[in-house]
Amino acid sequence: MDDKVSLLEAYNKADYPIGGNGKRNVQVLKEVIENTDGNTDSDMYGKGKVIEDFQTKMARYLGKESAVFFPSGTMAQQIALRIWCDEKQLKKVAYHPLCHLEIHEEKGLRELHRIESVLLANEERMISLEDVLNMTEEVACVLLELPQREIGGQLPPFEVLEAISAHCRGSGIKLHLDGARLFEILPYYGKSASDICALFDSVYVSFYKGVGGIAGAILAGDEAFTSQSKVWKRRHGGDLISLYPYILSSDYYFEQRLPKMERYYREAIELAERFNACHAIATKPLTPVCNMFHVHANVSKDRLEKALISVYAESGIGLTAFLRETGETTCMFEVNMGDRYANVPKDKLSNAFRLLDEKMQSTE
Amino acid sequence: MDDKVSLLEAYNKADYPIGGNGKRNVQVLKEVIENTDGNTDSDMYGKGKVIEDFQTKMARYLGKESAVFFPSGTMAQQIALRIWCDEKQLKKVAYHPLCHLEIHEEKGLRELHRIESVLLANEERMISLEDVLNMTEEVACVLLELPQREIGGQLPPFEVLEAISAHCRGSGIKLHLDGARLFEILPYYGKSASDICALFDSVYVSFYKGVGGIAGAILAGDEAFTSQSKVWKRRHGGDLISLYPYILSSDYYFEQRLPKMERYYREAIELAERFNACHAIATKPLTPVCNMFHVHANVSKDRLEKALISVYAESGIGLTAFLRETGETTCMFEVNMGDRYANVPKDKLSNAFRLLDEKMQSTE
Repeated sequence: MDDKVSLLEAYNKADYPIGGNGKRNVQVLKEVIENTDGNTDSDMYGKGKVIEDFQTKMARYLGKESAVFFPSGTMAQQIALRIWCDEKQLKKVAYHPLCHLEIHEEKGLRELHRIESVLLANEERMISLEDVLNMTEEVACVLLELPQREIGGQLPPFEVLEAISAHCRGSGIKLHLDGARLFEILPYYGKSASDICALFDSVYVSFYKGVGGIAGAILAGDEAFTSQSKVWKRRHGGDLISLYPYILSSDYYFEQRLPKMERYYREAIELAERFNACHAIATKPLTPVCNMFHVHANVSKDRLEKALISVYAESGIGLTAFLRETGETTCMFEVNMGDRYANVPKDKLSNAFRLLDEKMQSTE
Repeated sequence: MDDKVSLLEAYNKADYPIGGNGKRNVQVLKEVIENTDGNTDSDMYGKGKVIEDFQTKMARYLGKESAVFFPSGTMAQQIALRIWCDEKQLKKVAYHPLCHLEIHEEKGLRELHRIESVLLANEERMISLEDVLNMTEEVACVLLELPQREIGGQLPPFEVLEAISAHCRGSGIKLHLDGARLFEILPYYGKSASDICALFDSVYVSFYKGVGGIAGAILAGDEAFTSQSKVWKRRHGGDLISLYPYILSSDYYFEQRLPKMERYYREAIELAERFNACHAIATKPLTPVCNMFHVHANVSKDRLEKALISVYAESGIGLTAFLRETGETTCMFEVNMGDRYANVPKDKLSNAFRLLDEKMQSTE
């Protein structure tokens, strides 16, 4: 516990933390609100210009008939799957074992919606076309997460997505996109958001990952789907009288950061190369396909923690605030590129990696 | 539809709308954020100083062991009832037929939690001790809404609450308080919030009724209860990465308006008298017991609408923005007192009521 606090402290104290867009503090909201006319009316229980305009804008951007703003992706995605299950009268969906719904939502899908999950692929790899073709159980919906965050933000080839989509359409299976990081993958695919979303019946996107907003999500699909989703949003307690703090900030940072996604992606590739040049360290994937990747180290969490704290102190560069133990002598952490990286002096960064490499060699 | 818009427009255009605290616009948030240090860290998924401090403060204020901030009361209350039902292994609760869960939540309690409701009393009156004593069905929990909003914000005598509470405790029935307007009823009872909450096992309060915040709710009870509620909050999709826009505004306006609840209550009594002096108009209750009451008119919605629009235009006073039809020749509206009323010039107000009385006589 003490160690954990000190790595976080060391990261926060570093002159140049490399990840993310900056601190998650009230300034993030202050900047938005200072740029908003105080006379702007609040949304009211899902109605009003501020929410309707943003929903229309995102529906167009995603190439869908309609879109609904939700306070969270957890709520939006459970609801999407519930609608598809109700439509098919079959309470079963298929997704990856490391899907957000499976590991981060206290089994809300089962406890609230009584929907069972069929797990495709495994914790080491993405869902393949074969996984979908070879499903033995009938399901109402397949959920694909692009990129697959818990394995470092990996992506299948676009042709695989097309083939999975074609198969699902031909088999009466709905295809849902967990696009928490959809904006972040556009440069790799070289596709528009609507090109990708066209393969899916329903799509969720988030505004506090690469976009760096405060919270909030959009769920998009056809009109019949989204109008049902509004009923479920009320049932879940998500149809707040006012969602505008999240809507305004989502829109503001979407405009600000969408054009930077290509840069974040390039920077992720560059930074991953630096990690991979270090002793006993490898990134997953080796070459990132978006603004995120995982860093795996062949050294215990305790030892890497100590090494990192001294690297931060000596170089002024913060590499991560948290480590996760993956074995007795292995650990990992996640890197998400955002606004911060461009401000890191390259000589200081090189020095930090030189120090890290040295320490990794000496920890063996 | 055109008529409805024009009453709303006429109300908004009036120099002195009498109800509420002011417009629900971005200025409400701007004022809070301008008074908050930008370096204040965001809460993170229910943790961090900004949320924990407010939860502790509200737990103390309500006299409960623990409190949890929720994005909405809909979410908080369904979860409270679910916890009590699970504890008793009985999916049945009792409440008033005009309870928020029964009429405003798209049956979320049934659709998400499979909890059945037993309706106590009827649409004309509050729940009495006899209603609770004479329940023929076993329930896990009784919910009382104080004040009962949909019948004008009525309250039972405090002794009735004590008797219901004693009976429920003796019978193994949990008692939950829908305290959406708890702050508003303290002057009438002459009790502290914790005096009232002591009669209940769990309590929900809202921050956008009399308090005039943006959104948000607190659910309070003992530690075992609130820790379960956090698990359900995640399942519902309410455990947002950042709730601080709602927390900061709840705290800010709670401090600002809690001391004014006595004034709002006195003003409601004064204003209700003015309505009751008009021809064919009566308030419910005749003498308000908090900052709200309903106004019932023995005239069709259309005719009252036309009368009101000309009263607003002639007097500069706006009395209501909406009317609800209750019969062919009857209609009603709700009045909630807030900051605005104190700024209304009394001579203009008298003139408005003189005009209204005239028009009510001539509409017969």
